[in-house]
Amino acid sequence: MEKIVIEFKEKPDLEAPILIEGLPGVGNVGKLAAEHVIEELGAVEFASIYSIFFPPQVLIDEEGVARLVSNKLFYSKAKKKGENDIIFLVGDYQGLTPEGQYELSSTLIDTLLDFGGKRIITLGGWGIGHVVKEPRILGAATHPHVVEEMKAHGVIFSKDEPGNGIVGASGLLLGLGVLKGLEGICLMGETSGYFVDPKSARAIVDILSKILGSEIDVSSLEDRTKEMDAVTAKLKEMEDLPEPSKEQLNYIG
Amino acid sequence: MEKIVIEFKEKPDLEAPILIEGLPGVGNVGKLAAEHVIEELGAVEFASIYSIFFPPQVLIDEEGVARLVSNKLFYSKAKKKGENDIIFLVGDYQGLTPEGQYELSSTLIDTLLDFGGKRIITLGGWGIGHVVKEPRILGAATHPHVVEEMKAHGVIFSKDEPGNGIVGASGLLLGLGVLKGLEGICLMGETSGYFVDPKSARAIVDILSKILGSEIDVSSLEDRTKEMDAVTAKLKEMEDLPEPSKEQLNYIG
Amino acid sequence: MEKIVIEFKEKPDLEAPILIEGLPGVGNVGKLAAEHVIEELGAVEFASIYSIFFPPQVLIDEEGVARLVSNKLFYSKAKKKGENDIIFLVGDYQGLTPEGQYELSSTLIDTLLDFGGKRIITLGGWGIGHVVKEPRILGAATHPHVVEEMKAHGVIFSKDEPGNGIVGASGLLLGLGVLKGLEGICLMGETSGYFVDPKSARAIVDILSKILGSEIDVSSLEDRTKEMDAVTAKLKEMEDLPEPSKEQLNYIG
Amino acid sequence: MEKIVIEFKEKPDLEAPILIEGLPGVGNVGKLAAEHVIEELGAVEFASIYSIFFPPQVLIDEEGVARLVSNKLFYSKAKKKGENDIIFLVGDYQGLTPEGQYELSSTLIDTLLDFGGKRIITLGGWGIGHVVKEPRILGAATHPHVVEEMKAHGVIFSKDEPGNGIVGASGLLLGLGVLKGLEGICLMGETSGYFVDPKSARAIVDILSKILGSEIDVSSLEDRTKEMDAVTAKLKEMEDLPEPSKEQLNYIG
Repeated sequence: MEKIVIEFKEKPDLEAPILIEGLPGVGNVGKLAAEHVIEELGAVEFASIYSIFFPPQVLIDEEGVARLVSNKLFYSKAKKKGENDIIFLVGDYQGLTPEGQYELSSTLIDTLLDFGGKRIITLGGWGIGHVVKEPRILGAATHPHVVEEMKAHGVIFSKDEPGNGIVGASGLLLGLGVLKGLEGICLMGETSGYFVDPKSARAIVDILSKILGSEIDVSSLEDRTKEMDAVTAKLKEMEDLPEPSKEQLNYIG
Repeated sequence: MEKIVIEFKEKPDLEAPILIEGLPGVGNVGKLAAEHVIEELGAVEFASIYSIFFPPQVLIDEEGVARLVSNKLFYSKAKKKGENDIIFLVGDYQGLTPEGQYELSSTLIDTLLDFGGKRIITLGGWGIGHVVKEPRILGAATHPHVVEEMKAHGVIFSKDEPGNGIVGASGLLLGLGVLKGLEGICLMGETSGYFVDPKSARAIVDILSKILGSEIDVSSLEDRTKEMDAVTAKLKEMEDLPEPSKEQLNYIG
Repeated sequence: MEKIVIEFKEKPDLEAPILIEGLPGVGNVGKLAAEHVIEELGAVEFASIYSIFFPPQVLIDEEGVARLVSNKLFYSKAKKKGENDIIFLVGDYQGLTPEGQYELSSTLIDTLLDFGGKRIITLGGWGIGHVVKEPRILGAATHPHVVEEMKAHGVIFSKDEPGNGIVGASGLLLGLGVLKGLEGICLMGETSGYFVDPKSARAIVDILSKILGSEIDVSSLEDRTKEMDAVTAKLKEMEDLPEPSKEQLNYIG
Repeated sequence: MEKIVIEFKEKPDLEAPILIEGLPGVGNVGKLAAEHVIEELGAVEFASIYSIFFPPQVLIDEEGVARLVSNKLFYSKAKKKGENDIIFLVGDYQGLTPEGQYELSSTLIDTLLDFGGKRIITLGGWGIGHVVKEPRILGAATHPHVVEEMKAHGVIFSKDEPGNGIVGASGLLLGLGVLKGLEGICLMGETSGYFVDPKSARAIVDILSKILGSEIDVSSLEDRTKEMDAVTAKLKEMEDLPEPSKEQLNYIG
């Protein structure tokens, strides 16, 4: 079989689309944020990506129907003419191997170029090993002028954070994108690294609202955040959180 | 060498064959069940599959003769005209790597399509960590109408079982099959995950009898089950079964 | 680069050569035995094999000269006309991955066929976890008539030894060879699995002498055996040999 | 994507260039030494190497700008006509897998041949498990006459050092280079293996000065060495250095 198969349900006509990536990673921050925005914007699924670089696995839905693990592409048309449309990349897994990561990111960039895209925004978590009240959104970008643009939206660029760089799709889409003439930004929400983190995802969505210039409702993430805060409060009482491994903390989806 | 080599002894003329897969997995439930049905139906071996994705290993028979590890295909002609013939897939190992799993399953699906097949039944074990008196047969299927059909035969579709989906050939043949227009069902026999489990295999064969519409004798599996029950009774006395790892339990052949 | 590169110094004209393999493995029994026979017969090196499946490593000789890790082919012409010539396969490493093992063995078989060869003898150790006074030579073969032939030379075919079959080049050359019409035999010298074992290698050479029909001097191996026996005697006094892992014991070069 | 991508900023016209490799390895000795010489000679970056064999990672600079991990090529023109120009190979990582190591080294050798190069000097550390006052520079070479030439420059060729040979790019560039008609030498600076070691790097640069016939200033490495000596003195007081693993010690960049 082909190493990567993209099955298109539809080939939408898109206006200079921005690719927003939110695959699984630390605290699933990027995944939560991207899925939330997809829902709020009513984005439409238009392609499935299957690959030998994903686990050999099917997932089973509540009705007992199995489906092959995959990544999915959604699109959302801009509300105003002249604004960028959006392509979302979400899914069950990232590539399992370095080669798989490179091949998948490279294929996604080629797909974005086919649709006339110029810019990539990747979303992830930055694991810091302890719970944070107000997660900051750290950034990295492909070009100095994009750094400046993002600072204006409240993204924090902090020397030595993250010190090891960015591993996985969130980094690779930027690094490979530059080689094909794309601009990119990675938004990383601070997160403990212990559990799925809607509070950090919410902080990312707030920044995305500013970048995209359209308010995105975050009430459902707020509800989940409150639930999480309750859980965290209990955990603090118990006060013996296990230390995640360094590798887990530095990995960013 | 080719990554996957299929050596045909014979190219049988088959009527819309169903592929029944029973490769090694948790409790070897699927393997036991498939091998039992092959024997009861007097199915005929017609192809061997060798692959760089299998271990680099030969097995030695009682006479001292070595043979390369492989998968095998058997066929069984239907008793009545108009009914489906069957192709069985059994063997020593599954593919060792995710890529190997994908390539092997994809090749098998192409082979089934060459023979005019439309449906796949995969057999496996669902490890639950403790011995069960009456193993249930859990199912997952490719389409809602197949789910309904299987419920009628007594297959149980239980939300969140198995929660992690199905890893390996039993899942992949379904997931990849859908992409090529095939229908499929995975039958998973509950099993402890501690040892080879003829009781669970027998429960699968009972369901298979109903699905195939022809009674399959299970007396030899019953004999093995009685032996196992005796062993289990002893083990219960000793009462310190080791806990299998989560990975072992969730893996389904 | 090519995955496997064979550099020929010479393309000898060989008479139905037998391939004798002695790559590193348990107790390095096969390697010791093959290298001993190469020396005693004055076999001539005629090809080097390099591969991405070997470690990325050079070895350094006593003069400080580095050479890439490799396998080597030697040939030895038969003393009498009409007898088989011999090709020896020895080297620093076996392939690191299953795929590498398959590709290397497959390439070697093609090379043997190019030279008109019909038969393969692979040499290895069979780790049993304790020191043996008189190591038996266990066998496995590709065809029943070869089993009978080997029994006549004193090779022991013992049900369930080795129970897991033969992993690595010693097994694969036989298993893949059959698919290309070759006959093969694997000779496995019993060995503790704790250290390099010249005594077991010597027992293999004795059998090889019979199979090849020409006496091979074993005095140098006997000298090394005596050294080893002295070491073993000391170790027995200390009486706390570590248990090698099951994997180490069952692996046969 | 291509497995290895070389992006040339410039294709310089070079006179029989020597390739000097200094990729990360034990104590980063080779990396430090090569980067130092690049700076002292004012060498010019002319190519970037990207590969699926590197980690799927971007690094982030102080301004927040991300760049894909890579290797880089620099060149330095000889001061006198008729002398060799130099190509430097430095970078963030070596290939992650054996296959990657082979493919990368093979590609680099082809690149050197394209520029008319004939000789390779690889730089690395030789981890010995304890701090050394005056690190020796051990050598290995592709041909006996290169060994003699290097002895004249003070390189030490010591039987059984390093006993396991040289793993990684420093070894492979030599081993594969010989197959393409190149001469090569590996210079290994003794180092503890515990930390980045500018003292050992400095000893390598001293030898390189002799080999290249042009004095290279080492004052900045001396400054770093003094800092390190202060740290080492403190560590000695504490006297409980952890033992690095054998693998870490024998690996040479």
